[in-house]
Amino acid sequence: MRRLRDIGEFGLIERIERQIQRSREKQIEERRAGRSAPGVRLGIGDDAALLRLRAGEELAVSTDALVEDVHFRWQTQSAVTVGRRAVAVALSDLAAMGARPLGCTLALAAPPELPLRRVDDLIRGIVAEAERHRCPLVGGNVARASETSLTLTVLGGVAAGRALRRHSLRAGDRLYVTGVLGAGALALARCERGATRLRHLPVPRLAAGRALAAMGERCACIDVSDGLLADLGHLLEGSELGAELEYDRFPRPRGFESACRRLGCDPARLCLAGGEDYELLFTLPPRVRLPGGSAGRARRLAVAVTEIGRITARPGLRGLPELPRAGGWRHF
Amino acid sequence: MRRLRDIGEFGLIERIERQIQRSREKQIEERRAGRSAPGVRLGIGDDAALLRLRAGEELAVSTDALVEDVHFRWQTQSAVTVGRRAVAVALSDLAAMGARPLGCTLALAAPPELPLRRVDDLIRGIVAEAERHRCPLVGGNVARASETSLTLTVLGGVAAGRALRRHSLRAGDRLYVTGVLGAGALALARCERGATRLRHLPVPRLAAGRALAAMGERCACIDVSDGLLADLGHLLEGSELGAELEYDRFPRPRGFESACRRLGCDPARLCLAGGEDYELLFTLPPRVRLPGGSAGRARRLAVAVTEIGRITARPGLRGLPELPRAGGWRHF
Repeated sequence: MRRLRDIGEFGLIERIERQIQRSREKQIEERRAGRSAPGVRLGIGDDAALLRLRAGEELAVSTDALVEDVHFRWQTQSAVTVGRRAVAVALSDLAAMGARPLGCTLALAAPPELPLRRVDDLIRGIVAEAERHRCPLVGGNVARASETSLTLTVLGGVAAGRALRRHSLRAGDRLYVTGVLGAGALALARCERGATRLRHLPVPRLAAGRALAAMGERCACIDVSDGLLADLGHLLEGSELGAELEYDRFPRPRGFESACRRLGCDPARLCLAGGEDYELLFTLPPRVRLPGGSAGRARRLAVAVTEIGRITARPGLRGLPELPRAGGWRHF
Repeated sequence: MRRLRDIGEFGLIERIERQIQRSREKQIEERRAGRSAPGVRLGIGDDAALLRLRAGEELAVSTDALVEDVHFRWQTQSAVTVGRRAVAVALSDLAAMGARPLGCTLALAAPPELPLRRVDDLIRGIVAEAERHRCPLVGGNVARASETSLTLTVLGGVAAGRALRRHSLRAGDRLYVTGVLGAGALALARCERGATRLRHLPVPRLAAGRALAAMGERCACIDVSDGLLADLGHLLEGSELGAELEYDRFPRPRGFESACRRLGCDPARLCLAGGEDYELLFTLPPRVRLPGGSAGRARRLAVAVTEIGRITARPGLRGLPELPRAGGWRHF
């Protein structure tokens, strides 16, 4: 079996460039067909990449890392999924700011004995997911390390003053969430019980974020990465406000309760504290209606949206079932 | 002794924010004194940071990583130096594009048993060097890993069309280098022979890069990170051009030859292939003169500049001493 050490640093960079070249050729075709607006002036191969913002845009930037045996295990995920996941999770932060993706850089660290097939699959996953969201890989770094890690920095453009900040909320604002809650945690629970490999892939809600930013209304927004409870806590942080929730209205995947029962999981825990949702949690003033009925919303935001409660002047959270205590993830 | 695990992920983020806060207070004072032009609209604490380019600027972005026992060893460098070095080396890529720094993100991975003192020193080094070059730390990620690594993504602005690309050179162009060659490799050799800890810190030639970009002349530029020979090779790559060099004119640190002799190193090897210089290697058309005499140059570019040869239509390098063969650094 061939391994990373057999191709070396420059062989690895070449392989990455080849994958990008393939994806670039597709993009050029798309551009000719008028389907793509290129912001990349210079990609891989110089001291830095060059990107162009549109007039009146600000730059949004976020960095996210996946580390082997901390964020993923080779035993439970294919390398393609790991690569796609790294990009999707990073892009979710741009979605939560209402930014459109411009490009990304990758710092890939890996041990020399990593099988070459895994390397190729990783890169294929990264480039495919980046291309899917029109966020081309424009640069990065490769280095030896004792475990594999992928650090993605995503760059986006957002109209000046229109970015969706976390803390722009007031009492009375309605609370919404995109998609469903608990699907990621359920997939992880299935996978931990050895029933299946992890195939669930978060979808960064880029169209929804951009549509919200374009409304120009007061809108506090965050992506749900640590579970709804934790991230709602982040939204409220420092505000002295609280929230009244309607737990019965929380959107859950079809067949969620029975799937949880079969696995011996508490559905409320997975839904509220499971993490891995990467949906957008956001607020809007009560007078603001999302356009159209639920079908219209879905068209504009490219995803279903559910109203799940409202912000209150009284601090604390109300309207939720009790959860048995459990420790969250500890990095250190 | 307290360790990283004693403060946890959020304790670590808090510590980073505190250091940035201190540096931000200084910046606010500087801004009041008219000494700083802030491009940061939103720093750490939301889903992404927001930065502002000036009108007519493009974004330059580069990612660089330092990995424990690959790029640095705790035994031979203080944690402050490691932190400063990570930022300086990353900024050198912006210098080589002629970009002005806007801000940076840090992905810090570390084992839970890392001593807290080392953590604090690392962060202090990163924030201090970032501040020194007006490139504030605006976001990032922290994660557990089995060795420490620092991944820096640096963001800069450069007037559209003015960035210094590697490949814009022609036969007859003069070849220049900033500062001296071999100082970094000499310090490393000293350190490897156990004579001293590594205190040498590369200086990103940001002012020189910006001054070159502002000239608006045809200028190919690269930063010398792998040694002059290797990086000159990168400049010439794909051009079918060569270079005629005047080795006697190569700028070396004072007392370089005797220091090399004492350490038993070949001075030509350290000067040509030692790496770690982080000086700018660039070309200009023969009719273009850098302004003033050498003192004038030093003022405009904030560093001495030496003409070391010229680009030739004939491929290959001439005018250099023979080097004994030796393997470069292998990542994998």
